Amino acid sequence: MSAHKGNETVVFSTPVSILETASAVGTKEGEGPLGKLFDRVLEDNMAGEKSWEAAESALVRDNLSALFKKSGVSPDFIFAGDLQNQCCGTTYGVKDLNIPLFGIFGACSTFGEALALGAMTVDSGAARYAAAAASSHFYSAERQFRFPAELGNQRPPTATYTVTGAGAAMLGKGDGPYITSFTAGKITDYGINDANNMGAAMAPAAAACIKAHLEDTGRSAGYYDVIATGDLGRVGTELLLQLLEKDGINIEKNHTDCGMEIFDNKSQDTHAGGSGCACSAAVFSALFYRKLKNSSIKRMLLVPTGALMSTVSVQQGENILGTAFAVSVENEVIKWTI
Amino acid sequence: MSAHKGNETVVFSTPVSILETASAVGTKEGEGPLGKLFDRVLEDNMAGEKSWEAAESALVRDNLSALFKKSGVSPDFIFAGDLQNQCCGTTYGVKDLNIPLFGIFGACSTFGEALALGAMTVDSGAARYAAAAASSHFYSAERQFRFPAELGNQRPPTATYTVTGAGAAMLGKGDGPYITSFTAGKITDYGINDANNMGAAMAPAAAACIKAHLEDTGRSAGYYDVIATGDLGRVGTELLLQLLEKDGINIEKNHTDCGMEIFDNKSQDTHAGGSGCACSAAVFSALFYRKLKNSSIKRMLLVPTGALMSTVSVQQGENILGTAFAVSVENEVIKWTI
Repeated sequence: MSAHKGNETVVFSTPVSILETASAVGTKEGEGPLGKLFDRVLEDNMAGEKSWEAAESALVRDNLSALFKKSGVSPDFIFAGDLQNQCCGTTYGVKDLNIPLFGIFGACSTFGEALALGAMTVDSGAARYAAAAASSHFYSAERQFRFPAELGNQRPPTATYTVTGAGAAMLGKGDGPYITSFTAGKITDYGINDANNMGAAMAPAAAACIKAHLEDTGRSAGYYDVIATGDLGRVGTELLLQLLEKDGINIEKNHTDCGMEIFDNKSQDTHAGGSGCACSAAVFSALFYRKLKNSSIKRMLLVPTGALMSTVSVQQGENILGTAFAVSVENEVIKWTI
Repeated sequence: MSAHKGNETVVFSTPVSILETASAVGTKEGEGPLGKLFDRVLEDNMAGEKSWEAAESALVRDNLSALFKKSGVSPDFIFAGDLQNQCCGTTYGVKDLNIPLFGIFGACSTFGEALALGAMTVDSGAARYAAAAASSHFYSAERQFRFPAELGNQRPPTATYTVTGAGAAMLGKGDGPYITSFTAGKITDYGINDANNMGAAMAPAAAACIKAHLEDTGRSAGYYDVIATGDLGRVGTELLLQLLEKDGINIEKNHTDCGMEIFDNKSQDTHAGGSGCACSAAVFSALFYRKLKNSSIKRMLLVPTGALMSTVSVQQGENILGTAFAVSVENEVIKWTI
């Protein structure tokens, strides 16, 4: 059973387990500090396909297949999405898996949205097992949102580097870690319209979502061993800490950003950090899930962040909107007072 | 409480009520056979905005606001999506409503996906009220997927006409009609790659989803007063009936297609019929919800259908995939044996 708590939060009184995760990344991510933690590192970012877009779909398909194999179960439903127009990375990726898809779009917050929906579905009894997944590909994203990589355009220091990869989690009933609650953030509009500064567009959404989560659950920021935002990067992180500080919330000690974990900025020339749907999905699946499993952390708040925009909306002068989902993952079953 | 039944179906043992609906459409839809049933008909398809895309967002915002007013409640969550790249019709439409959004993408099946997710969320206790919504705009869709309307390109007879409009439903606990079950279809690939013949791409998905629904629920096709597909149009409908006939399922008497209801093909020159996310959303909200409320029908299966593709996927020679969600809406509470 679950219940709505406070304004934007859902708490699960029967635990939803993350039974297993799977991750796959591209070459650059494989060379990064987390390289050895991913289940699979591509030797070639084309993944044997004819286009970057098809390569992303192959990543989605193969990573979900790996998840099914690792967990030993097949899900009733898949909740998944990506950044390609009309979520084609996902739809072409899952088409041969023969499992119903709930296609979702939360930009780079998609993995948080997928975990939230998957957990509700398992909790309600509507599915015995549900898979939550997200993906992105540097080259399909660059040419869609900015410039074809072949042009060699210079990227400003505020720009993030879209992660090539896929992350997925199998939800069901079992041992911990458990999804114990989530907070679905509201859309924020801070007047940002620079498509090379997504961190600034998303930081206010992350701040608002974390604040709402702490208020709704009655928890302090120190409750969590780790609060990991999705892909704010260096610029967005600085802004996030400032915004929360204004509200008397200090997360400097336990905050990290998946986009800052996945690349070594000094040696990898990735500017503000990693981004894309796969950033939080792959980093959670490879790094944090492992840490929860071996109890080196016991309570974490994963906050995938999304910049809502399209090339058309930017060309038409619309601001870039922000959104975020905060998902608390804990090793212990929580008895909520509702 | 809900339960997974059969292969792809979820049944609700505690009823989820459709408390209210709201619909808004463009000028051409207002001149069609259902014109008087919509809550609002635009006088100008620009809706007072500077772009077709912004006009769609205004439709989304105003129609949801109308739904909140009609139902007298504000939802905890919104489940909504559209056809614009990165679902911008929806994100910019809901940004000022101050309610968390679960952005979804099921192409023209989006309203079915939204009803399914909203019903699960209310059923599980995660939301007291949830809004399910979908939208599309002829001019934003034409220039994104085919040609700018200003070019005056000739459209083949198999082409459908994207509905300008928005439809939305408020889900909660209350009187009927109720969402009693849904079936989430699997993605089908029938080798169709003509973006002007979406009906043919979607018909196999609709047929498979209806068949799975009847098998999973143990119902016969005749159980429903109406089985309404979303936007197969004339070409897709013919194919649907043939495909089901092969499996011994005859729905000729109780089948209709929302795309064939919304326009008068003879006088309105809309070729195969209406399409787009708004097609099933607005027709259900305006026509079928009313019929259920006044008991002129008692049991219906709404089957919004989606063609999964993008301009990039078509240019790269990928097939157009099909999907569908079947949602049963009934005036009586059903006691499922699970």
